[in-house]
Amino acid sequence: MDIFMKVSIISIGDELLSGFTINTNATWIGQELLKCGIIIDRQITVGDNSELIINQIDRCIQSSEIILLTGGLGPTHDDVTSIALYKYFEDKPIFDSEYWKNIEKYFTKRALSVPDINKNQALKSVKGKMIPNSLGSARGLHYNIKKTEIFAMPGVPYEMKSMMSKYIIPKLKSRVNNNLFINTLNTIGKGESSIAEQLEPIVAPYLKVCSVSYLPQIAGVDIRISSRDKKRLSELKDKIKHEIGDCLYSEKNEAIENILGALLSKNMMTLSVAESCTGGLLGHTISSVSGSSKYFVGGIVAYSNKIKRDILGVKEKTLTKFGAVSKQTAIEMAQKIRNLFLTDIGISVTGIAGPTGGTSEKPVGLVYIGLSSVNKKFAKKYMFHGDRDIITHRTKQAAMELVRRDLLGD
Amino acid sequence: MDIFMKVSIISIGDELLSGFTINTNATWIGQELLKCGIIIDRQITVGDNSELIINQIDRCIQSSEIILLTGGLGPTHDDVTSIALYKYFEDKPIFDSEYWKNIEKYFTKRALSVPDINKNQALKSVKGKMIPNSLGSARGLHYNIKKTEIFAMPGVPYEMKSMMSKYIIPKLKSRVNNNLFINTLNTIGKGESSIAEQLEPIVAPYLKVCSVSYLPQIAGVDIRISSRDKKRLSELKDKIKHEIGDCLYSEKNEAIENILGALLSKNMMTLSVAESCTGGLLGHTISSVSGSSKYFVGGIVAYSNKIKRDILGVKEKTLTKFGAVSKQTAIEMAQKIRNLFLTDIGISVTGIAGPTGGTSEKPVGLVYIGLSSVNKKFAKKYMFHGDRDIITHRTKQAAMELVRRDLLGD
Repeated sequence: MDIFMKVSIISIGDELLSGFTINTNATWIGQELLKCGIIIDRQITVGDNSELIINQIDRCIQSSEIILLTGGLGPTHDDVTSIALYKYFEDKPIFDSEYWKNIEKYFTKRALSVPDINKNQALKSVKGKMIPNSLGSARGLHYNIKKTEIFAMPGVPYEMKSMMSKYIIPKLKSRVNNNLFINTLNTIGKGESSIAEQLEPIVAPYLKVCSVSYLPQIAGVDIRISSRDKKRLSELKDKIKHEIGDCLYSEKNEAIENILGALLSKNMMTLSVAESCTGGLLGHTISSVSGSSKYFVGGIVAYSNKIKRDILGVKEKTLTKFGAVSKQTAIEMAQKIRNLFLTDIGISVTGIAGPTGGTSEKPVGLVYIGLSSVNKKFAKKYMFHGDRDIITHRTKQAAMELVRRDLLGD
Repeated sequence: MDIFMKVSIISIGDELLSGFTINTNATWIGQELLKCGIIIDRQITVGDNSELIINQIDRCIQSSEIILLTGGLGPTHDDVTSIALYKYFEDKPIFDSEYWKNIEKYFTKRALSVPDINKNQALKSVKGKMIPNSLGSARGLHYNIKKTEIFAMPGVPYEMKSMMSKYIIPKLKSRVNNNLFINTLNTIGKGESSIAEQLEPIVAPYLKVCSVSYLPQIAGVDIRISSRDKKRLSELKDKIKHEIGDCLYSEKNEAIENILGALLSKNMMTLSVAESCTGGLLGHTISSVSGSSKYFVGGIVAYSNKIKRDILGVKEKTLTKFGAVSKQTAIEMAQKIRNLFLTDIGISVTGIAGPTGGTSEKPVGLVYIGLSSVNKKFAKKYMFHGDRDIITHRTKQAAMELVRRDLLGD
């Protein structure tokens, strides 16, 4: 047996291939298995077609010890994953009247009538095992064939996640027999090429025992290092950390909003936001951390100049003399939100997210981020590239990073 | 030749398999090709390993006419896609000094020093063609082998998109020779099972010539119907539309925020938002539509009760008697934001997104959405299932849907 366990994911669904749905399931499974030291060997997406599914299972069985299928267990006619599995394993499922009663209960409890088409979800495998689903009506399937285990799960993300956590991951853990150590350093402030070049001399001597990847994110670069040699890995990690300094914001794949939240909590400080071009995204991201109500009190989305002036209190003169997208307006927005909301820190964002509204003097992507705290006030100018969505995302990341750096005393 | 063109996507990157990056590239390609009547046959993700890449290319060539590779064209040592292609095609690339000068210019223009490791990006294929990249330094590669065309693109989404739109899609369009008609009906307000059961008698007689898929979204269900028979497709579509009525919000895969924006613009009405549990997500989503400044003036994120009272102006009595998460508070929040921001419509959101903060009386997922306009004020109670992220997303969708229905005069 290989030291590595070979795991394949087969994602099933026309909606994935035609781009109606983003395959976040494969992403989540990759993350969770990585935590157990398991790396996905390959991931394949096929449509709702039982022949294609059988084809892929047959192919994966030749090289994989674990095959994870997601999707196609629903009640409608285009859900064919169980049909494919029953056919492949020459399994003749029986009707599980016990389980059908449960489905009826599930619908009745929600004051819904039970659709007849859900009846196929009450079928029960004879050759394989049914995997319980505590969050929905579609049970999973579990087959063993020679050295390979096959698990089929629903495509609904929270049902899949629950099935993975409760049933599949414990089984996989008991099979893992490796000691791959993985460390990730999350950085912000530098691009992929320049970080890679900066680190190349440090990394080069380690490449025989350690593997290093640079993973560009919307804002920042993650550096992932892995090795079977714990000591050498730790050595390399320390050298990289020393080299990149303050660009490092986490070693645990935490989001900046979590790091920022922890810093604010530790310092017992509160925060408010005044947003223009991000329209609420900054506040939403900060408040997406559970428990954020301890330090985040709220904000004003001042999308129009009228609101910047009448509600937030930015001076008319500042707006006419310097414009809404200016250093001066950013500083005033930060001060005003801090005073209005009585917080320790006020942060502001004003910019041109595009695609329209840019001029040669103030082009699309120009953003000012302002910060006001007890003993200082300032604003920083940014020039972001990308479309409207990327610009607003980079803006909110930069805004949180500005507060993080400020709290660290930079 | 098949009527269908067989297209495979090979996504390359350790970061995709280990879940550091979500494969939105495959999603986008699926969407764009669908618009041309092309359906992806399969999508495979492999790691940064040239042997595995070669393996997959070799396998796909046997059945696909088009192979699209994304990722692994960057400058660092884990970018091996071009190496794999050069090896597979026994191609001996040459150094392109002309292009190297361009790369130097690109970096100099941004006041950056040129990393030496970018030199491998100046290599030029002899057997294939280089695809221009107007947004970055990694050029694409284009090979022909027998009936198959292979295109390799960078993994950076906006670079890939630009290359697809400018170079690859025009080439594919000239090869497509089919007439698959596709219609999508976007609905909100009902679940997958109940919509499918409701439509089953209507859909059944058409299944020989039309294909129907139900695609559950975070909020709502998309119904996709496709056929080569335009007349029968149109017949079926009309019958489905008649049956589902007002649950239909778009026939063009538009987001609710776009539909809502168009309605507000048409009625020359303005909107403001008062958000609690969504923390700014609702405002951000509404403002993510280009041109939204015409109807969206802004909002207040009243995350703490203090802000609900002191800034928004919700009565202390309302908060203590009914609680922050209540019908009464939701109505007052909507009224107050409308009055403060002087808009035609005020919308409010207050709820418990979890995972903490729920009680048996007011459990996690309980949300009130309030609406205030010239001649009415009301709030609606919702009970959402899912994690914090899903609850906030469902909340903002429901809030926009509430305004949409109100504008339609429901």
